[in-house]
Amino acid sequence: MKTFTVADYLLQRLQEAGIAHLFGVPGDYNLEFLDHVIDHPEITWVGCANELNAAYAADGYGRSHGAAALLTTFGVGELSAINGVAGSYAEYVPVLHIVGAPATEVQQRGDCVHHSLGDGDFQHFHRMAREVSVAHAVVTAKHAAQEIDHVMTQMLRQRRPGYLQLAVDVARTPIDPPRQPLFTAAVSDEKALVAFANAAERLLAPARRVALLADFLADRWQVAAQLATLRQIRPIPCATLLMGKGVLDEQQPGYLGTYAAAASDSRIQAAIEQADVTLLVGVRFTDTLTAGFTQQFAPAGLIELQPEHAKVAGDLFASVAMADALRILEKLFRQYGRHWQAGLSSLPPAEVEEGGAITQRNFWRMLQRYLKPGDLIVADQGTAAFGAAVLQLPEKAQLMVQPLWGSIGYTLPAAFGALTADPERRLILVIGDGSAQLTIQELGSMQRDGQRPVILLLNNDGYSVERAIHGPTQRYNDISNWNWTALPHALSQTCQAQSWCVTEAVQLEEVLFRLSQPDVLSLVEVVLAKEDIPPLLRKVTDALHQRNSC
Amino acid sequence: MKTFTVADYLLQRLQEAGIAHLFGVPGDYNLEFLDHVIDHPEITWVGCANELNAAYAADGYGRSHGAAALLTTFGVGELSAINGVAGSYAEYVPVLHIVGAPATEVQQRGDCVHHSLGDGDFQHFHRMAREVSVAHAVVTAKHAAQEIDHVMTQMLRQRRPGYLQLAVDVARTPIDPPRQPLFTAAVSDEKALVAFANAAERLLAPARRVALLADFLADRWQVAAQLATLRQIRPIPCATLLMGKGVLDEQQPGYLGTYAAAASDSRIQAAIEQADVTLLVGVRFTDTLTAGFTQQFAPAGLIELQPEHAKVAGDLFASVAMADALRILEKLFRQYGRHWQAGLSSLPPAEVEEGGAITQRNFWRMLQRYLKPGDLIVADQGTAAFGAAVLQLPEKAQLMVQPLWGSIGYTLPAAFGALTADPERRLILVIGDGSAQLTIQELGSMQRDGQRPVILLLNNDGYSVERAIHGPTQRYNDISNWNWTALPHALSQTCQAQSWCVTEAVQLEEVLFRLSQPDVLSLVEVVLAKEDIPPLLRKVTDALHQRNSC
Repeated sequence: MKTFTVADYLLQRLQEAGIAHLFGVPGDYNLEFLDHVIDHPEITWVGCANELNAAYAADGYGRSHGAAALLTTFGVGELSAINGVAGSYAEYVPVLHIVGAPATEVQQRGDCVHHSLGDGDFQHFHRMAREVSVAHAVVTAKHAAQEIDHVMTQMLRQRRPGYLQLAVDVARTPIDPPRQPLFTAAVSDEKALVAFANAAERLLAPARRVALLADFLADRWQVAAQLATLRQIRPIPCATLLMGKGVLDEQQPGYLGTYAAAASDSRIQAAIEQADVTLLVGVRFTDTLTAGFTQQFAPAGLIELQPEHAKVAGDLFASVAMADALRILEKLFRQYGRHWQAGLSSLPPAEVEEGGAITQRNFWRMLQRYLKPGDLIVADQGTAAFGAAVLQLPEKAQLMVQPLWGSIGYTLPAAFGALTADPERRLILVIGDGSAQLTIQELGSMQRDGQRPVILLLNNDGYSVERAIHGPTQRYNDISNWNWTALPHALSQTCQAQSWCVTEAVQLEEVLFRLSQPDVLSLVEVVLAKEDIPPLLRKVTDALHQRNSC
Repeated sequence: MKTFTVADYLLQRLQEAGIAHLFGVPGDYNLEFLDHVIDHPEITWVGCANELNAAYAADGYGRSHGAAALLTTFGVGELSAINGVAGSYAEYVPVLHIVGAPATEVQQRGDCVHHSLGDGDFQHFHRMAREVSVAHAVVTAKHAAQEIDHVMTQMLRQRRPGYLQLAVDVARTPIDPPRQPLFTAAVSDEKALVAFANAAERLLAPARRVALLADFLADRWQVAAQLATLRQIRPIPCATLLMGKGVLDEQQPGYLGTYAAAASDSRIQAAIEQADVTLLVGVRFTDTLTAGFTQQFAPAGLIELQPEHAKVAGDLFASVAMADALRILEKLFRQYGRHWQAGLSSLPPAEVEEGGAITQRNFWRMLQRYLKPGDLIVADQGTAAFGAAVLQLPEKAQLMVQPLWGSIGYTLPAAFGALTADPERRLILVIGDGSAQLTIQELGSMQRDGQRPVILLLNNDGYSVERAIHGPTQRYNDISNWNWTALPHALSQTCQAQSWCVTEAVQLEEVLFRLSQPDVLSLVEVVLAKEDIPPLLRKVTDALHQRNSC
């Protein structure tokens, strides 16, 4: 029997966390560790074309699957990935970044080895990683189990990246397998819960208009089912911010649409802001999603749930876990909910206008008609994400966007990661041409792994979202023009992909009709006018201009 | 007349440093600064497909042109670029990284704005940048001139990256133009120079066998002409390490080849290590270039010149600039050189074997015959860089490699940057398939800008350099297979590129014959066996294995 090593210990902890795939790029300081990955019966290696793409793929996997892991090599590899990890940190996705490092002895001697800065200091990159991880360790042979467990526990509990630097000699050190599973649940303080319950009751008991605004932290702390239950008890008016879109079932009564503060539809804004009590669940107000922090709430009417604390009318209740707080709200919904106004049903999606060129306006309407239950829509930062705000998601459909970190190009590898987690799900990627250029390589990985995304590539001839912000005709907003429909073939020798270029609405309708359940990767280049942007994005950029913040 | 702003001040300093191109990707926090770039009569904006590629391009430009600049946006942009900047830091290339940041007020309030981590701390990325820059500043409206001048001076003097975070409001602040040029030269201490001269004379006067080993820091401190002069006075035996290849004229008498410590040709090793006195000029011994630090020198016979200090027989002379030390050596060469043995002329390149499949062996011989004076050969880390060690460069030809930092994929954008600096130079890029996948996008930028590189893409079906190190048949060393010859077309709508795929030596010979002075981008896919690696690389990986360091 083979010796059980630190590498195996780490893999066992990954498996325990439900992580069945490891994304990354091989490098000479992680090859031996990779042998253990290949030998592991439950964990699959997923090679990516480069490290940033691998980090994005891990993030997409983590959002779909609960947690993810990323393997890179020292220096060159980890730094290439670090922007992806930072995105996971900003947007709360637990991704474990494992970095294969030179042997401990080499580091202690300060040798001038490749992938180091040549100055004998091997902790530069660890210090950089600390800025974007919630826990981090240079694993030692002596304390490997504690170090790994500490980082994994914090990562899973706080839903943010962890960093482990694993030297080649440490990875092969013998160790005992873990005896206890990791304990990662947040625990509420009983007294604080009681106090929270009383405070919430004081607000909710006399209320007539109660509204719910949910956001991405509700998704990350996995309380979507609890929110659905509340709404079954009483279908109060509710909305999400763009970043949390999908955490509320948009087919359930009371769903209003996307809340974007002053950039919202006025009906939505009024229902959410002018209730007697508004429940904010996992909400973070971000500049671009609130037209520059234009939300207006009376603090006295707010009940705010965060991952590990709550506030009622401005009073803080520490050590109150979101799930526990929602259990208390469920009781209060049963007790008082019948007195609250039910939400209006959302407006039916507008009819698609037939004919003519494709515009942002008719594009999203056609996409709306195309959607079906269970779809995963992945929309890149830019016109895609802001456009997606108008969609009404079918049951169990979800939206993946990255509006706080906002790293363009993120979604293409993230879609690869999400499909790795769930290959049978229909995934629709909407991405602009400028964005797709950053990370195009993973079209090859998707095909290698037989994935079948529907990719709607919005070709608007450059960085349209930047044009909307500044310099609409400046040449820095132009990009190299590519032959988009030729790319799937160029990036796979065994290509079975199909691609189209459409300029007319009827063409797009026809292609989407064919793509009901495609059996190969399908890329549709959708040609749009340069400066055509979704109405929400226009409102947002106008507001940002006024605040002079961009 | 327009107001002169901090943005203009910075651009004027760039121009003064000879930087005529600014590489990068636009983002909303740098768009206004970009207006000033576009308006500047002498500085051209060069948009890249993503930030890592832009950083690599800036590095390649800096190596060719003396210094470079890179513009990214806050957070997402700068972190994507940071691996490229780290490479410039490790390998001493002065690249100014300018980062457009949110308005000072937004930062002071700690707003949750896009491209931040959402925690109100705007200094995370500045702290990360400090690890890979020699000077750095968050530019303030009050002290902008001093801050910019400090960073530029240190960057140019120490030949390593500088970092400037430029908030949108600071960039538009009025300021006076600079009055004095920057002073960036290293100044030697007169006494130290005299002491160095005496010590060097004590060693050189009685010597019979004097040898010269030059490396990349001699290139970075721009002393190639001085080295050529010494060798004209007396053609002593000389060699370079791979990283410094090209800093010695390889057609001048006395040039032996590439020194790689125990992995060297024995004749070269003996001539360099067993001289009475060996001059080391700008040398850094790195693991992979010395077969794991196997160099053997008697310290009593060493004269070592570093950028700002020198050592003679182990004694340190601080504040001795490399150029000044070389002026002293020039006198000593004139005085004593006639007593020193002249170097043997290097072996003539082996004849190309006709016919048969392409191998690492005949590939480099065919490339040798193809070279002509003035060529720039850019060879990616992996089989390409190690293979290039056997080339004998024609007059004024140069080699660009990145063996210390060793970030695969670096060379493709670096070649784009080098051609931006000098579009008329014939550039030959040799890169493996695994490496090219990381950064392929810049094939599009090359075509947009009408560049005409000759790209020899070594298709050996995966990461061959990794196979040589570990796991020759493991699937983590496999990659997605691409249609390489289809890529130039897919990445440019106005493609005029030509491409070939060759498997036989005669085919490659024929194609190279046609590519004497190509007028469009030319990509040759060179099919090689999976595990065929250059002999030097075999020796190096064997040595690294023995040291257990990878």
